[in-house]
This record gives sequence, C-alpha cells and structure tokens, in this order.
Amino acid sequence: MRSPIPDYLAEALQSVESDTTGATADYIPELADADPDLLAAAFCTEDGRLYSQGDVDVAFSIQSISKPFVYALALADRGFDEVLGKISVEPSGDAFNDMSLEEGTGRPRNPMINAGAIATHTLAGRRGADPKDRIERIIDGLSAFAGRPLDVDEAVYESEIATAYRNRALANMLRANGIIDEDPLIAVSGYTRQCSVRVTVEDLALMAATLANRGVNPRTGAPVVPAPAVRQTLSVMATCGMYDGAGDWMTRVGIPAKSGVSGGLIGALPGQAGLATFSPRLDDHGNSVRGVDLFQRFTSDMGMHLMEVPPPGPSVVRSRRVFGHGPLAVQVVSLQGSIRFAGAERILRDFEDDPPEQKRIAISLVRVGSVGDVARRMILEAIRRLTLDGHDLFLIDPDGVLPDPDPGDGGRVTVVGRREDIAGFVRK
Amino acid sequence: MRSPIPDYLAEALQSVESDTTGATADYIPELADADPDLLAAAFCTEDGRLYSQGDVDVAFSIQSISKPFVYALALADRGFDEVLGKISVEPSGDAFNDMSLEEGTGRPRNPMINAGAIATHTLAGRRGADPKDRIERIIDGLSAFAGRPLDVDEAVYESEIATAYRNRALANMLRANGIIDEDPLIAVSGYTRQCSVRVTVEDLALMAATLANRGVNPRTGAPVVPAPAVRQTLSVMATCGMYDGAGDWMTRVGIPAKSGVSGGLIGALPGQAGLATFSPRLDDHGNSVRGVDLFQRFTSDMGMHLMEVPPPGPSVVRSRRVFGHGPLAVQVVSLQGSIRFAGAERILRDFEDDPPEQKRIAISLVRVGSVGDVARRMILEAIRRLTLDGHDLFLIDPDGVLPDPDPGDGGRVTVVGRREDIAGFVRK
Amino acid sequence: MRSPIPDYLAEALQSVESDTTGATADYIPELADADPDLLAAAFCTEDGRLYSQGDVDVAFSIQSISKPFVYALALADRGFDEVLGKISVEPSGDAFNDMSLEEGTGRPRNPMINAGAIATHTLAGRRGADPKDRIERIIDGLSAFAGRPLDVDEAVYESEIATAYRNRALANMLRANGIIDEDPLIAVSGYTRQCSVRVTVEDLALMAATLANRGVNPRTGAPVVPAPAVRQTLSVMATCGMYDGAGDWMTRVGIPAKSGVSGGLIGALPGQAGLATFSPRLDDHGNSVRGVDLFQRFTSDMGMHLMEVPPPGPSVVRSRRVFGHGPLAVQVVSLQGSIRFAGAERILRDFEDDPPEQKRIAISLVRVGSVGDVARRMILEAIRRLTLDGHDLFLIDPDGVLPDPDPGDGGRVTVVGRREDIAGFVRK
Amino acid sequence: MRSPIPDYLAEALQSVESDTTGATADYIPELADADPDLLAAAFCTEDGRLYSQGDVDVAFSIQSISKPFVYALALADRGFDEVLGKISVEPSGDAFNDMSLEEGTGRPRNPMINAGAIATHTLAGRRGADPKDRIERIIDGLSAFAGRPLDVDEAVYESEIATAYRNRALANMLRANGIIDEDPLIAVSGYTRQCSVRVTVEDLALMAATLANRGVNPRTGAPVVPAPAVRQTLSVMATCGMYDGAGDWMTRVGIPAKSGVSGGLIGALPGQAGLATFSPRLDDHGNSVRGVDLFQRFTSDMGMHLMEVPPPGPSVVRSRRVFGHGPLAVQVVSLQGSIRFAGAERILRDFEDDPPEQKRIAISLVRVGSVGDVARRMILEAIRRLTLDGHDLFLIDPDGVLPDPDPGDGGRVTVVGRREDIAGFVRK
Repeated sequence: MRSPIPDYLAEALQSVESDTTGATADYIPELADADPDLLAAAFCTEDGRLYSQGDVDVAFSIQSISKPFVYALALADRGFDEVLGKISVEPSGDAFNDMSLEEGTGRPRNPMINAGAIATHTLAGRRGADPKDRIERIIDGLSAFAGRPLDVDEAVYESEIATAYRNRALANMLRANGIIDEDPLIAVSGYTRQCSVRVTVEDLALMAATLANRGVNPRTGAPVVPAPAVRQTLSVMATCGMYDGAGDWMTRVGIPAKSGVSGGLIGALPGQAGLATFSPRLDDHGNSVRGVDLFQRFTSDMGMHLMEVPPPGPSVVRSRRVFGHGPLAVQVVSLQGSIRFAGAERILRDFEDDPPEQKRIAISLVRVGSVGDVARRMILEAIRRLTLDGHDLFLIDPDGVLPDPDPGDGGRVTVVGRREDIAGFVRK
Repeated sequence: MRSPIPDYLAEALQSVESDTTGATADYIPELADADPDLLAAAFCTEDGRLYSQGDVDVAFSIQSISKPFVYALALADRGFDEVLGKISVEPSGDAFNDMSLEEGTGRPRNPMINAGAIATHTLAGRRGADPKDRIERIIDGLSAFAGRPLDVDEAVYESEIATAYRNRALANMLRANGIIDEDPLIAVSGYTRQCSVRVTVEDLALMAATLANRGVNPRTGAPVVPAPAVRQTLSVMATCGMYDGAGDWMTRVGIPAKSGVSGGLIGALPGQAGLATFSPRLDDHGNSVRGVDLFQRFTSDMGMHLMEVPPPGPSVVRSRRVFGHGPLAVQVVSLQGSIRFAGAERILRDFEDDPPEQKRIAISLVRVGSVGDVARRMILEAIRRLTLDGHDLFLIDPDGVLPDPDPGDGGRVTVVGRREDIAGFVRK
Repeated sequence: MRSPIPDYLAEALQSVESDTTGATADYIPELADADPDLLAAAFCTEDGRLYSQGDVDVAFSIQSISKPFVYALALADRGFDEVLGKISVEPSGDAFNDMSLEEGTGRPRNPMINAGAIATHTLAGRRGADPKDRIERIIDGLSAFAGRPLDVDEAVYESEIATAYRNRALANMLRANGIIDEDPLIAVSGYTRQCSVRVTVEDLALMAATLANRGVNPRTGAPVVPAPAVRQTLSVMATCGMYDGAGDWMTRVGIPAKSGVSGGLIGALPGQAGLATFSPRLDDHGNSVRGVDLFQRFTSDMGMHLMEVPPPGPSVVRSRRVFGHGPLAVQVVSLQGSIRFAGAERILRDFEDDPPEQKRIAISLVRVGSVGDVARRMILEAIRRLTLDGHDLFLIDPDGVLPDPDPGDGGRVTVVGRREDIAGFVRK
Repeated sequence: MRSPIPDYLAEALQSVESDTTGATADYIPELADADPDLLAAAFCTEDGRLYSQGDVDVAFSIQSISKPFVYALALADRGFDEVLGKISVEPSGDAFNDMSLEEGTGRPRNPMINAGAIATHTLAGRRGADPKDRIERIIDGLSAFAGRPLDVDEAVYESEIATAYRNRALANMLRANGIIDEDPLIAVSGYTRQCSVRVTVEDLALMAATLANRGVNPRTGAPVVPAPAVRQTLSVMATCGMYDGAGDWMTRVGIPAKSGVSGGLIGALPGQAGLATFSPRLDDHGNSVRGVDLFQRFTSDMGMHLMEVPPPGPSVVRSRRVFGHGPLAVQVVSLQGSIRFAGAERILRDFEDDPPEQKRIAISLVRVGSVGDVARRMILEAIRRLTLDGHDLFLIDPDGVLPDPDPGDGGRVTVVGRREDIAGFVRK
C-alpha cells in the first residue's frame, strides 16, 4: 500500500499553487531573484518519518527561521538566567525590524525580532568564545537539529552584510544599552552568517520535529538541546513567532511557528510533528503567502490546534475484578493507556470513591504504555495510603513502566514482573 | 483511601500563605475592604471531579474573569464573523484599561482588555435583544458554565457603576468608532453588572473545566458553548489573558488563563482540567500575587504546560500476527490506545513499509479507546487502498469506536463486531 | 484715495478660489452641508481698523477656534497655577481628538486638543459656578473678544451633542483621572455649546486682534483678559495650535494660529494684527485648505513671520551736542524712536564708551515715542550713575513718556517739560 | 559712567550660584569630570556689544549647541529642498537620543534630535565633498558664527567616538532609510568632531547674536548664512530646541534656544540679541539647571518673550500740515519711526479716511529711520493712487530711506532730497 499522506501533501500544494499574490523579499538580489513559483512542503513525525512534496531539493537561506533554534542553543549553552536577563519574551506588536526596546531595561522584547535575535546570537556557545568558534558552534547546532551538516550560502551572506544597516543599527543600540558587550559589527556579521545557512524544506521539517520531540533529533537520535530549553522556545514561538499577528495565528493555526524572509515557514506541534513549507512570495507581514495558507489547511485537516481538545479516551481504570475468595481474595485493578496527571487522578478517585474490600490489591500495568513522572508519584502515594489503610499491595508491571516503585514512608508494595507469577495471580 | 490531592492543595496554599505582598484593588470600597488574607484553590477534572481547599465558601465578584466566558457566549450567539469584525485578537502589550484601539478599524485589540470586553458584552444574546434580556442571557450563560444559578452582587454593582468613568470613556469611544451602536451608558451598565456576578473559587474551577471540556459542563453535562467557540476563547486567553505579561505567563505557566481584580484567577488546560485560585492582594499588573505563585506551582507539579511534551506512548500498532495458513491465512493488525493523526500516520506507514502478504487483513480495534475524526478518515483511506491492492479487509470493532466505516470509492470492508465472530477470527 | 489693502485681500482670495481640494467636515449635517465654496478673509489692525473681503456676512460655528480664547479666560478667571495644574502645554504630535494623556499626571497634553479644551472649559468662570453661569461667562467672554454679542447656533449644538461620543469619552477619561470633577456629560454639553457659538470672519479677525493687542479689544477698548494670559495663550497657539503640523506651520507661516473644523482659521501677530480666513474645505489635518494657503501668502507678503528680523532702525541716540561754554555748557543727548531694552542698552553704552565732559547733561525725549518699562529703569539707572559721577542731570520730556522719573539711591534729575524751558536749554 | 549691565549679569549669576542640583553628563570622563561649579553668562547685542560675567575664559565642547548652526550652514549650502527632503521640522515629544523616525518617510523628526543632527551634518558643504573637507567647512562655518577660529577638543572627540554606539545606531538607521548615503561610521565620526568644537560662553553669545542679526556676524560684519536660513533655524529652535519641553520653554522663556550636554545654553532673540550661559550640572532633560533659571530670569527682566507685546509706539503719521495757499498750497504729511507693514497701513488709512484737499502733497520721510520692503511698496501704491486721483506728489527723503521710488503704472512722484529744497517746501 502506498501511503495517502504524500497524496494529501501534493493535493494541498496544488490547492495553493495558483495563488501568486505577494512578492519575494527585495532587499538583496539573492532573495529578490528567487524563483517565486517554488513550492514545497514537508512533514516529519515525532519519530522521524519524513513526508514531502514539491521542490524539496531546492536549498535556500534559513533567515529568521534560525532564530528559535539559536535561542534554544543559547538557553542550553548559557542557562535561562543569562539569556532572560538580556532578552525579554513578550510579544512586541511590532514588525520584525522594530527598534524599540523594553523601557527601563533596554532589553529586546523577544528573541524573534531582529534585535532579540542578534542578542541571542551573541549568547550561543560558551562565554568568551571567539566569534569564529561561536558561529561554528551555531552551524553545528543547526546541523544537529537538521540531522546533516549544513553550510553557509556565501553569496547570500556577502549580499546581506553589505546592506545590513538596520541590523547594524540594532546591534549598536544593544551595545549602547549594555545588552551585548562586543563590537556590534562582529555581532551583525555572525548573525548574518547564521541567517545565511542553507536548508531545504525537509531540513526544516526535521529541525521542527526535533523541537516537537523534546530536543532529540528523531532520525539521528542525538539530543540537541534539553527539554526545558525546548519548552521555552516553543512558548516564545507561540506568542512571538509570527510578529504582529501572534493572536491571529494562535486562533487560526494554533501551533508554535516561525517564518523567514526567504519563504520558509515551520511549525512544531509538541509531541506530534514538525512541519515546513517553502514558497518565496511574502505578504505584508513578511510571511510566505502560500505557506500561511498551507499551515491553516494542515492544522485544520490534521486537528493539530493546540487548543483542540481530543475526545476523552477510555477510562484509565479498565476493570476492577476480584479473584479468589476469603482471605486469599485479591482485587485486581487493571489500568490501561498512557497515564499522566489526569489519569492518575482518576485512579486515586476510584480508590477513594470505592475502597477495595479485599485485603490484597494488585494494580496491573500490563496494558499501560507509559506513566508520567507526576502520575508515578501519585500512584505510589496511593499505594502508600492503601498500605496504611491495612492493605497488601502488588504491582503487576512486566514491562517496568513504573520504575523505582518505592511508595515511601509507611508504604510497601510487591512487584510482580514475571509472566508466570502474573498468571498465578489472576487465576487465584 | 483518602485522596492525596486535597492534601496537595492544602500544602500548596500553605506554601504561599505567608506572602502578604501586593494590595487589594482600591477603586471601590467593596474591593478595597475585602479581607486580604482570604486564600482558596480549586481544581476540577475534565469529568467534573472537584477538589478544593481554603476559603471555598467565600463569594466574590467575578470581575474580568467573566470576559472569556462572555466572549465564548458571544461567539456562540453571533458567530465568528460578527464578533471578529468588532474585536481583534492581538495581544496589546497594554494594561487592562488602555484606551488605544486598533488603527484603521477602531476595533479593540482583544476581548480581554476592558474596551474589548465591553464590546463583547454587547454581542452576547440575540441581535436586537433589549439590555435586560441581554444581561439575563449573560447571567444564565455564566450560570451554565458554573453549573448553578449565579446572581449579581448589587453592592459591588452600585459602587462600580458610580465611578465607572474609565469604562464610560471606553464605551463612548467604541460608539464613536461604530463598534457598538447603542447608548454607551447602557453598555457600561450591563458590563458592570456582568462583572458583579458573584462566584466562589469552586464555581470558577468548574467554569474553567467547562472550557477545558470542549464547552460541556462536566458536572451537569449541559453543552454551554460549541467547541469552535471554546477553541477561540482558549487561544485568546493564551495570548491575551494576562495583559502585558502574556509572554512571561506562556513561558512560565503555559496554560490559558484569566485574572480578575477581586483576586480570582483561572486556568483551563484543554482536555484535562480547570483550575482556580482566590487571593485578593494584587501585583502591579492587577493579577493576584499568591494566585500567580500557585499557578506556577500547579503547572510545574502537574506537568500541565502546553508545551510540555509527554514521553511517547507505546506504538499504536500493538502487533501484527498471522493466523491460519494458505489462502485462509489472515493477518490481524492489532491497534491500541487513542488514535489521532499521529497514530493513524504510523498505521499507514506500517502498511507501506511492510505490506501484508496475506490476502485477508483484519484490523482490530479491540484495544482502541477512541479514533479521532482525521484518524478515522486516514484508516478508511488505508482500507480503500488495501482493497485496491487486492486485499479483503475486516474491521474488528466490538465497541464501534470507528463509526460509519465506509472506505469510499473502490474500497470495501467487513465489520466484525460480535465477540464470537472475533474469536473465530483470531483462532483461524 | 481708496486703500489698496481691500484690493490686496480681494486678489489673495481670487488666487486661491480655484482650489477645490479638501472636503467639508462630515460628522454632522450642519457642517457637511455648508457651501464648500464660501470664502472670506479679514484683517484687523492692532488699533482696530478692519479690512475684509469675500463672504464676510456668513456666520458659522466657531468650533475649535474657541479654544485659545476660552483658555485665556480660564487663565484670567482661575490663575496660572490652577490651569497649568490641570492641562499641560506640550505639543502632542497627535491629531486633535487623540485620547492619550500625559503619563503620570493624566493631564491633557495641551489646551488645543479636545481633551485639553474640555478641561479648559470647566475652568472658565469662578470656581463652583453652576454650568449655566459658566457657559454664560464663556459666551460673554467670547463676545468681549469680538466686540459684539455672540450667540449659539442651536441647530449645530443639537446636532453635535447627539453624536459627541468621542468628546464624551474624553470627558469621562478626564473625570477618571481627576482632571475634572463634575459630571462628564455636563462638561461635554457646555463645551459643545462653546463650540457652537456663531461668528463671522470679521468677528474672528477682531478676536485675534484682541489677542494681538495684549488682551484689549482694539475697537471697544475693553480689557478682556490680562497681558500674561495673552502671552501664555499666544505661546500655546504657536506650539500647539496647528495640531500635528506645529513645526511646519512655525517655519512656513510663523504666527500663532488656530483652526476650526467649520473652516475658520485665525492668526494673531503680537503687537501688529489679527487675521482670519473662512473656507470650509479641510485638509487631512482638519485645517482649511484655502485658509492655510492664504496665511502663507499673508505672512510672506506682509513680512509677519515671528522670526523675520526687521532691518535695524536708526540709532536711538540721534545726536549728542554741546550748547554753551565753560561751566554753563550742557551736553544735550537727543534720543529718538521707541525705546525698549536694546535701545536703552545703546544709550548706556554710549555714556560708557564716550563719557560726557560737561558737568551738565540733558537727556532729550522730545523725539521719543515710548519707553518700555525695562528701558525706563535702565535710563534712570544711567541717570543715577551719572549723578554719582558728579554730573547734573536734566530730562527733557514735554510729553511725559518717561513717567515717575526717580533715579533712586544717590541719583537726581531735573525734569524739563515746558516748551519754553526746553527752548532755553538748547539755546544756551 | 560704568554700564549697569555687567552688574546685572553678575547679580543674576549670584542669584543661581547656590543651586547645586543636577549632575554633569556622565557618559564620558571628559564631561563627567568637568568642574560642576563653573558658571558664566554672556550677552551680545545685535550690533555686537558683548557683556559677560563669570567663568568666561573656560572653554568647553559645544555639543548639541552646534546643531542649529550646522543646520543653518546646510540650508545655505544645499538649499531648503534638499535639507527638508531629508529632515522634518516637527517637535518630537521625545528625548534627544530617540530613535523613532517619521513614519512613511523615515526622516528624522527634526534637526535638533541626534538623528536629525547627524543627517544635517552630512548635508553641510557642497555635495560630494570628502569628509575631511566637510568637517573643515563646518568648523570654518562655526568659526564664522563665533568671529574667531575655533578648534576641536581632541580628547573629547576621542572619548566620545569610542562609545558612540547610540549615534552609530542612528546613523545606520539613517543609512537603512536612505537619508544618508555614506558609510555611517564616517557620518558619526564627523558629527562627533562637530560636537567636540571648543567654545567659551562669549563665543556662544556671539554665535547666537549672529542668528539674531539675520546671519551677519555683528562684530566681524561677515555674512555667515542668508536670512531665510536663519528664519528657518530660529523657527526650528523655537519648537524643537529644548527637546521634550518645547511647550514649557515657549510659554515661560519664549525665545528660540538650544542646550548642550556640556552645560551650555544659547538663546537668540531676532533683531535684538544673543544670550549664552554655561553651567555643567544638567536636569533630567539634559538641560543646564542654572542655565534654564538664568534664561527665565533674563527673558522676564528684559521683556524678551516673543509673545511679549510692546506698548504701541507713537503714530507713524506725525503731522499733516498745509503750507501756502490756493493752487500753490501743499499738504506736508510728516512720517516718523521705522515703517513696516502696520505703519504703512496707517498711512494708507489716513489718506483714505481724510483725503487731502490740496492738489500738491508732500510726504516727508525726514524723521523716518527705515522703511521695510512691504511698507515701501504700500507707500508707492498710495502715491500711485493719489496721482490717479489728480494729485502732484513729492517725496521729501534727504537720507534716501525709500530707495527706487517708482510708483508704477500711472503714478508719478518728485523726490526732494536737498536740504534747501526741503526748506523751500515747508516754507511755502
């Protein structure tokens, strides 16, 4: 069977192909002269399956789409305190190249506008690294997100640096405000190089999927940035990624995203997938016209909106059955699914609302896929409390989905892992 | 067993109790004279279980927390076009009472600032309703969210209306810009009445849970507003609910929220829970000091951040086994869990990467909790394509989790629902 | 001889007549329906001579041109402290109906924008006056400026008050900020009445001439407001009178001015003249298109720019001649012109650079028109110092242009007023 | 006699000496380390008499006080069109180093904020001049204003250029907006050098007096810039010279002014005088604390406020007397004073209101100091009209104050210049 997903992508591309509104960015010839009809989309699952259609082999400069990735790198390299001390996280309501900085602190309003992105650039790599090492660190980091070695489009770099007066203005302003402490021209040069890194739409989809996958590249398996940095980055993309249309994007598309002036657009839906599109014609906000359309279509077709509530799954407590009689009787509480806070709450509630009469209670995790950290602690607390209530507890966990099952002060539980022991249980 | 959740809530309250920074709102005596030490928290699961601690019996005026609920009511009553035509959805970067309206259109920037909330108020109920009917509709609507009849605190209303000059200014501005078309004083009077509705922290938790539960009150089961209105409302809360600290809230707490000047604070995590806190001392932004602390604690303890990625669950394809031999052989593909887009993609991929050799294929939904709409369509498309590839398809669905299983043009599938038939299958 | 000035005015009107760009104000029918071709100009000298041409008999509502006059009345009635405490004097860079108020104080930025004008309105008349008395005081005051009883155009008033939502918004905002302390609707009603006062272009020219003439109506001779209030009012007109084009107006026209939405425009050149034009079509700033053209023409033709430097006049020291011989010799220092600071400085300098050798010195004011207050004190100080140097001083002042000639501590002077005594002098 | 003016200045300095509020500019050591107690004031009359007191020999860097002078030079060198095309003239309501530029055009809001001053710097000298020639032109120009060769304080220059990040930001922004078309670093370097020019308080007073004297240095007699450039410069100083306090300055001081961060402050009252003070402690706006006090004192003591209305002088028509009888009778109209538009209007009015009965009319300019250009044309027009009315006109003008007396089409006049002819006249 051939997967229908490529067909879906092809259809989606076809549906927007005829829209030739907007125009390529015109401030440098390398962008202005891009073929405006180029069109591509790619989709990478959380576990690394890549679907793509259209002009997938065309490489283009990453531009502003580098911003969230380098922000994540900076958070990883320098920690939250240093990065947040230099760059705020509030939506600015301003265009991407706005010069206004936060009153009082002089901090750029967020890392997605140029001022913030230049400051972010200087925070990647170890403190005191020389500019050459720093840009190397950044290209390596972007490559790790993409799962292959990326390089710089030198023609784009040369063209941009020659006219980067606005960014030079921003960098000088940052220097005046003490946000950066190096020669502003060096910061701009490095930042321009970062923006000139060459990617394809598939690279972008994989980079986004790495964010969606808690910072681990789903194809190479390499951990690129730690989970808290990813959470912070996705949050900032959600509120500031689409410049002055953050609210509109959140209501209509509802996934953390970032666009670039060369026509790229990415979205990362935590735990699910990374998306990317490429089409060089831009709207007035500087976002790809057909890219925005495609994202609206994707999010609607795939039910990916962050606020889209999935229908409630089956109860985490699949069954409570009693095996055996008298003092040997055991109540087997059979759980199912992936258990997080809400699921654990239902288990606790079940025990409270309908306390087991049997002395022996076996909690079966046979049908459980995973147990979140909070859920694990809640289940162990239930075990502790049931022990204190006089019960003998057993945990049937052949796959070890609940590691280190120590219920703590006054609690006790016997783990039953071997298949044969389990069989013995449910038969008694 | 007594649930540990109330203990957790009690502990959380205790941890913030000593913080007496901030001050009660001072613009009317009714708020200024509130006991500043009052403290309460409540938590309502998606299916209506309510946990609460602290001063849960104290009623207070709902104030700005009414905004998202009335916005949802207006969307339900008038439709998206009319409401979005009058009120934008962009974060304003401004304080709650800011007067600046969107350039060009004169629309309030979003429904969470006062200007937008007054405009929203006039859009609740049917077009042309008289003001008395409209406020009745709103109080009924808020009551439906809370699951019990709410009333207006007349003393608060009288006090607020007597000094509501700023809101009168906003309403007149809206009238001047053609955003409202009624006597501005009537709009302000109705809006003030809406803000004076009396609630407890438990009411708020249940109201938030109704948003988290796709608009259906989880205790009464009553559908209050349709799902698209909820999605829109939660999106707006996410970007605009915390005034000029939207970015900070998204990164640190990460759940759609709304605060009120009387000290209430709610959060709604789609599909999971509604939270509420009550503590009258406010910070400089007008948000409850201890409420903000509690939310940070809750979201961190319970892993509720929107961008928090759950560890991947077990594969949706539990097993593929062949029963029988020769032409009678059947490959049984056993699925599990709740299947949404990402899960369906994995099923399709499995069929593509490893096409079944047997003519007969049975897809078992026995262990599947639910199938999302997109996933359903993807599975049916897989069935259609497999039919076209020459396979005979069977769908083992005893609980009917995949309704209306018509694979469309060229596809065919036999549904096997009765237990005995299923047993026959897996034995062959 | 017929004066060429009416011809000049007629020519000026003719030169702009063909310009039909712009449009009448459209927010009320009374203004929208004004005959857009109406055109008039008037010019009133500091001593009350009135020249006018065009539609001089057409009455129209004064609108915003009332603002500087009522500001002057408020300053006169309440004093600078109270008025400046409520309304700032900074150019706002904003349009006339902007809502932004000064940060921190909540004061309107200046009395020429609507917010400031409404606040100003409430400060006219004695503190605590009832609204009826207050509006009477204002109409009486405007009438005193115009030199004839003015009345209110009730149709305009009714029409404006019915749609004055923006001004109601402003008034409520002022009330919220404590800038006004009365019912905002009363303030708006009074202010709208003030704006509906009916005037002709000749009234406006005379009103402006009253400002140019230090607050004294040059035709009736009635003192309307004291000189410091006029100075303050003219200063504010200079920086804030033309809304967001203050700098452009100052460079190109260079006289304190104020425009109104009904098509009027006034200018007051201190000590010289009041000008007014009337033409209802407005530009984007809300200023009369042909009015602005006329003012540029007037100021350029008549050399009225504030920064236009007149060529230096003849020396104030006309001659120094010695009459008589020996101990009876007298040096007669003959002054001429109007003597202000700069002139007095030259007299002092003359005495210092070229000290008189004669014991007797006569200062002749025969050809002097007037002596300013500062100049008077400087001349008396020179007399005192010359006395101390051993001279005998005489002041020849037949017309009494230097009143109260007491040179103070150690000085002495003999005033010679009678013609025959003077003759005796110059002959000796 | 010793002039009392130095005593007055000394007293004024003494009156502010004890005020030690404010602080020296702290961004470079050269300014921070200035002796904060330095205090000086100077006053230069329109004809070049200089009075000064205090630390008159201390040289300091001119800083922002260079802005109006270089603006005048740019207007002179490049014309109004080019300069106004690059720099607007509106008060910004912003601090001196604000980065916001005019929307749409990207022009700096005015030449008194740094952005505008940097752009102005690049417009001095001939188009295409190399930077070295340009700065030479500027220093020469400033020297011409001061009447002596000025030089650059190299220590100040080096110190400022090393930390001029904010100005570099502005210059890059100007380059990005196409306002300047050269390397931004060169513009900043030149501008910094311009600001480092060394002056004394007496230099500043003379420079201001040159502006007050229509661009002619009153001591050297050298024409530095043409009158229209001066008018434009003074207008801009009036509305933008004191940064965000333009309105306050206009109401309270009322003379075009400019301050500098090294503690200098100048004021130029057209046609009267240039003033300067020096005291390094600055207020929050960056203006010299004691300098502002001194200016308020000067303007009030000397009656120099632009809106201060001088008392009306004596009538320009001194007398109308008839000499002789019958057909030989002549009416001699004797004028006096300096005649500008307002005076000429009175002459015309006199002829209109009271037409001469005699055929022969002699207009005597014997007591007239000067006749402005407009007045000259008006008097000639009167002569023309009187000719057409049948009169024979004579102009008694021994000093030639009314040059080129051609009354034009249909007019005729006989000029009587020789003393003996005049005598013959008045005796007839």
